[in-house]
Amino acid sequence: MGYRVAVVGATGAVGREILKTLHEREFPVDEIVALASPRSTGREVSFGDRTLKVQNLETFDFAGWNVALFSPGASVSAIHGPRAAKAGCIVIDNTSHFRMEPDVPLVVPEVNPNDLKKAKRGIVANPNCSTIQMVVALKPLHDLFTAKRVVVATYQAVAGAGKDGMDELFAQTKGTFVNDPPKVEQFQKQIAFNCIPQIDRFMDDGATKEEWKMTVETKKILDPEIQVLATCVRVPVFIGHSEAVVVEFEEPVDLRKAREALREAEGVVLLDEREDGGYVTPIECVGEDATYVSRLRIDPTVPNGLAFWCVSDNLRKGAALNAVQIAETMIALDLLPHRN
Amino acid sequence: MGYRVAVVGATGAVGREILKTLHEREFPVDEIVALASPRSTGREVSFGDRTLKVQNLETFDFAGWNVALFSPGASVSAIHGPRAAKAGCIVIDNTSHFRMEPDVPLVVPEVNPNDLKKAKRGIVANPNCSTIQMVVALKPLHDLFTAKRVVVATYQAVAGAGKDGMDELFAQTKGTFVNDPPKVEQFQKQIAFNCIPQIDRFMDDGATKEEWKMTVETKKILDPEIQVLATCVRVPVFIGHSEAVVVEFEEPVDLRKAREALREAEGVVLLDEREDGGYVTPIECVGEDATYVSRLRIDPTVPNGLAFWCVSDNLRKGAALNAVQIAETMIALDLLPHRN
Repeated sequence: MGYRVAVVGATGAVGREILKTLHEREFPVDEIVALASPRSTGREVSFGDRTLKVQNLETFDFAGWNVALFSPGASVSAIHGPRAAKAGCIVIDNTSHFRMEPDVPLVVPEVNPNDLKKAKRGIVANPNCSTIQMVVALKPLHDLFTAKRVVVATYQAVAGAGKDGMDELFAQTKGTFVNDPPKVEQFQKQIAFNCIPQIDRFMDDGATKEEWKMTVETKKILDPEIQVLATCVRVPVFIGHSEAVVVEFEEPVDLRKAREALREAEGVVLLDEREDGGYVTPIECVGEDATYVSRLRIDPTVPNGLAFWCVSDNLRKGAALNAVQIAETMIALDLLPHRN
Repeated sequence: MGYRVAVVGATGAVGREILKTLHEREFPVDEIVALASPRSTGREVSFGDRTLKVQNLETFDFAGWNVALFSPGASVSAIHGPRAAKAGCIVIDNTSHFRMEPDVPLVVPEVNPNDLKKAKRGIVANPNCSTIQMVVALKPLHDLFTAKRVVVATYQAVAGAGKDGMDELFAQTKGTFVNDPPKVEQFQKQIAFNCIPQIDRFMDDGATKEEWKMTVETKKILDPEIQVLATCVRVPVFIGHSEAVVVEFEEPVDLRKAREALREAEGVVLLDEREDGGYVTPIECVGEDATYVSRLRIDPTVPNGLAFWCVSDNLRKGAALNAVQIAETMIALDLLPHRN
């Protein structure tokens, strides 16, 4: 017996990836509905071989639906997430809106699955893409040596800004070959052949909101004692976030044990040879589920230091896959009731 | 009265930039010669309005020449640098070959000009591009608060791999628009729309040689007590290196004083507004001499922490300009004798 599943924001880059992921992973679907804002109503999206006609979120009644995977804008989730939850439908929300609310679990299934039991409001939040891959890689190392401080610099793909972000990189790049001046709309400056050290808006302390998210979300998911200093940078890559991560641990680091733990960790693939090309780059992780860890090495500048490089498909593990895995984990933990 | 100047490796990306920089800065040139390997002999390069016919380095006699700016491969400098120095010509070498030799000064004129007085062998080394911009930005902060540990992640342009590197990014990018599979020659993997966490070869400890260079060169130029952990990454940017730098200091950090010092520092432009676009990106620094510092903020995860973003034109300050500035500083310090 399957579930009645709603996908909200179905026409966006993440929404489409959620539909694809549900189908690929054979999520037990009895009935599925694609929802979006009124302006997208009537458009069509794919679910396996089927075509779904997009319905109007604003007038949709969630009563009798078991789970809704939300990836619209944060302001849309703010209104329709609680409405769906009130109707008895479990909401897995991919926006930043509910993430830091104390009664909303923020979950990466490989890291803190049991937090799902605390979803009293019927809402679970999916973390930010850049946080997810970092905590997946950190978890086995934290279990071994207890991380206390992380310095991370990110190399984030334009897909994090949705389909429009990808279109802008494509158009600006093409423009350089035909001498068209770049149109800057989705990002603050030209992204083609450039790096932009700003993702999301600035906070009062000079960090950006994306950097703040990596700090507070890592604390909520992994351990409130971990300090995180992040610099988040947009790079001209279509899909796949990379991160240069430098960690100080409480306890002495054993590189062999670290490798073993990463090799055995769920959701992690360690691909790390100290030779030309012996690491994973973002274009190589597109369409893959894992978080790839490479360039693992001792940081000799502090007592218990370790540095690594990690890459992951930000649309999959960074968004759609993690959301679907949350739903799967809720089924496994008997937290997703049937309501037929 | 001017100098007799030789430019070695004159047909490369840096060699051409050196010729351009000498002309732009009105370096006191009495006579200039462009030198390169036999296979480039007879080609032509520009020096202002003049055209220089490239001469054969291997048979060139440096006697009577005052200063030679070298930017060929490291193995070429190894042979012809000492040969030129022995003939009484001051050698300013842009390769990595002599940098760590104790009797060869490694100099960034804004940081350690007086080390030029120690050039007993007649050879001065120009640091690695990624090191130069970092120490230019660190120097005024180190003077104020004493840096003890630096964690840096780089976003390095393909121009660091010369004209061939730039051609490869161009060709691979163009190829994606016409469905040509990317040819990988200069870099270890595809660089178009990708990030490669390897620059130079791997060392035994898992760092790359580029990362090792940033560590040992910073110590030699700025302070042997500073610890540096670098992750060096090639990004699909043509010209202009970026760096996310996180520093721990001995003494308490005053953000206002840090800003003042950076504003007054030679070679640094502080451009830092905490609002959309209030920072410098690599495409904006192309052709500029300064090292731009942005995103300056307190790092609250350690007692005396500070983070910033810096960008610079890696062909100019990172190579050609710094070499020419070394020659200018040697004139100012009366270290460049006339030998007519």
